[in-house]
Amino acid sequence: MNFDKVNYLMSIASDMAYEAEKMGEVPVGAVLTNGHGDILAKTFNTKEQTPNACFHAEVLAISEASKKLNSWRLLDCDLYVTLEPCPMCMAAISQARIQNIFFGAYDPKGGAISLGLNLHKDQRLNHKVQVYGGFQHHKNSRLLSNFFKQKRRRYKA
Amino acid sequence: MNFDKVNYLMSIASDMAYEAEKMGEVPVGAVLTNGHGDILAKTFNTKEQTPNACFHAEVLAISEASKKLNSWRLLDCDLYVTLEPCPMCMAAISQARIQNIFFGAYDPKGGAISLGLNLHKDQRLNHKVQVYGGFQHHKNSRLLSNFFKQKRRRYKA
Repeated sequence: MNFDKVNYLMSIASDMAYEAEKMGEVPVGAVLTNGHGDILAKTFNTKEQTPNACFHAEVLAISEASKKLNSWRLLDCDLYVTLEPCPMCMAAISQARIQNIFFGAYDPKGGAISLGLNLHKDQRLNHKVQVYGGFQHHKNSRLLSNFFKQKRRRYKA
Repeated sequence: MNFDKVNYLMSIASDMAYEAEKMGEVPVGAVLTNGHGDILAKTFNTKEQTPNACFHAEVLAISEASKKLNSWRLLDCDLYVTLEPCPMCMAAISQARIQNIFFGAYDPKGGAISLGLNLHKDQRLNHKVQVYGGFQHHKNSRLLSNFFKQKRRRYKA
């Protein structure tokens, strides 16, 4: 694993998360690359503005990359996302045959791995995804906690 | 539960599955209704033709209904789908706050419930969905098994 490359692509994912925040969306960003590391998709969560409960950054990255490759099979592709994927996204990533996921902050309340689900390597499903977590955890986590802190403040005001 | 209503809406979902089959897609169809039983979306799997691994009938029904209601929260809405939802779709259904699912054929190899996952009523997730299964199981199951039988025949020929 090339840590410099992962950190570089995670920084771009964080930039996307900031874009989400500007629009009042929960700040999660994603980058999807092919096997050579070329960026196929840069996306962020647009659940509120679309509105669509499925429009998490990961699902949007899969859609954009599939369009670009004209294939639903994103073989040899890697996903970089600022937050641990929820069960829907983890299963979507598996459906799309993505090879590796690198995620930022752990999500103890909603992340597929933190919840003890085994969607990324369930022997009964068609595909196994390699998952690496915790990249730039504090930066990505702080972005989210600040967002929710401000939101609570606004509710109180 | 009004069985006549469920059977009627399941028949429309089956019609959608036939539409998918005509296009060479795995025949799965879905109908999404509001609390009054008005149809908000009729969709079928378009994974191959789009192409997009996430474009299962259920995800497309959620997208269409969200557009119509201009909300990602599909509160009081019910989903009728010819096949037991996979983990991605079950988690998406939960994300969209759908109230009830009625599904047709059980899917022992890929269905979220058949796999023993607990995504529809996991206490730790934000929403619990009521799931009823097995409606017109044989009809919906036969449609799928015939599709795969023909596909295998074509490969052999």
